[in-house]
Amino acid sequence: MEKLTLIKVGGKIVEEESALNHLLADFSRVEGYKMLVHGGGALATKIAAQLGIESQMIDGRRITDADTLKVVTMVYAGWVSKTIVARLQALGINAIGLSGADMNVILSVKRPVGEIDYGFVGDVVAVDAGRLAMLLEQDIVPVMAPLTHDRNGNLLNTNADTIAAETAMALAQRFDVTLVYCFEKSGVLRDETDEESVIPVIDPDLFLQYKKQGIIRGGMIPKLENAFHAIDHGVKQVIITKASAILDHQGTIIQKRR
Amino acid sequence: MEKLTLIKVGGKIVEEESALNHLLADFSRVEGYKMLVHGGGALATKIAAQLGIESQMIDGRRITDADTLKVVTMVYAGWVSKTIVARLQALGINAIGLSGADMNVILSVKRPVGEIDYGFVGDVVAVDAGRLAMLLEQDIVPVMAPLTHDRNGNLLNTNADTIAAETAMALAQRFDVTLVYCFEKSGVLRDETDEESVIPVIDPDLFLQYKKQGIIRGGMIPKLENAFHAIDHGVKQVIITKASAILDHQGTIIQKRR
Repeated sequence: MEKLTLIKVGGKIVEEESALNHLLADFSRVEGYKMLVHGGGALATKIAAQLGIESQMIDGRRITDADTLKVVTMVYAGWVSKTIVARLQALGINAIGLSGADMNVILSVKRPVGEIDYGFVGDVVAVDAGRLAMLLEQDIVPVMAPLTHDRNGNLLNTNADTIAAETAMALAQRFDVTLVYCFEKSGVLRDETDEESVIPVIDPDLFLQYKKQGIIRGGMIPKLENAFHAIDHGVKQVIITKASAILDHQGTIIQKRR
Repeated sequence: MEKLTLIKVGGKIVEEESALNHLLADFSRVEGYKMLVHGGGALATKIAAQLGIESQMIDGRRITDADTLKVVTMVYAGWVSKTIVARLQALGINAIGLSGADMNVILSVKRPVGEIDYGFVGDVVAVDAGRLAMLLEQDIVPVMAPLTHDRNGNLLNTNADTIAAETAMALAQRFDVTLVYCFEKSGVLRDETDEESVIPVIDPDLFLQYKKQGIIRGGMIPKLENAFHAIDHGVKQVIITKASAILDHQGTIIQKRR
């Protein structure tokens, strides 16, 4: 199978011009098939505030009412997506910015209201790897925004880490997929304040132990859950690393349970 | 050659939920290959105002500074594009929302500063009909936002009527193209206040005469110039009509100079 690298970029990278440009320059040098999944949450919070819309977060997840959906659609699929695409074009990469609604690439279902009503938030149901492969095979590089749809006409705000994992899993049936989660830190850290404390390899047992000890917490927990889900479902390699290190494959390597 | 219908929807239709839904339902029933080009100017003006950005227009053309570019990118390629795509998916149409930067579909050049500095405004240089045909032949329906790029990393605000004309002309080499400009009026009117005063057929001579007499003025002048440009460059049929009449092909028919 041909190699495919799926890079998920999030955190502050998307909002910082020079960090984003550096990441895109590195991304343009990744060999073989590739695609990008991006976030944009901090920028959405900023634009929402300017529009007088309060951002309500629970455990790092955004409660998405109708106004917030409008903002995240504008920011993720509009400004962030097209800025990335235009810059990749300047780097000679024939990119295309997509949401899950485009070509029905990612279908989701509105999250059922439980203890928390997340609003217009989607849980991924299906990724159309065939459509993505069709683009990839024509040397087009998909750039995915964290938005999906329910095929009833509704857009749904969807976690970008989950989109990256689900897309990597779907593409793993056709490609030899490496999934790289990159952000502003050097990897999964033993001590959040110490960039030298990168955990080089993590498996589910170590994850559970670190979680219990409070060493791994907050947003890193769902990120690692997504990473383990991907490595357990056909993705060849999963790495969590710094945005400036995507070409080196340093950082934290995710390992299956032995 | 296979038939292709290119519908350009603008004016107030894009901002009015029920008018847009009606238009999309009709569009979903258009037979043969089809694509949509949309505007979104009034919504951009509204969002810009909410963000404290003043909209400066000269002869109906938006002066696009860096902040305004951000707004139009968010509104056109984000909210309007993805709302249309999600609704078309619900109607069983496998749509894809594109800007000119996506797949390098529409390349433009920043308008040179003359008497007026329009800012980040693009004049179309090339439309990649091959990429659009590739999508169309896989039953994917392109939905174009009025944004292009210069391949130097810059997005450029671009007139939607011009995008529709240039795209129709490029596709005319591969398809038998009908271009329909639709909006809230019944066609080109002899009297703007009288919906019954539709000019059924117009050619360049009549256009010049009506322009001289002040019967045709304002935004209708560049729209008609785009329409004549298209019919003179291979597009089979060009019609200006009401959004609710796209299936009837009523309204004003654009005719070549005899």
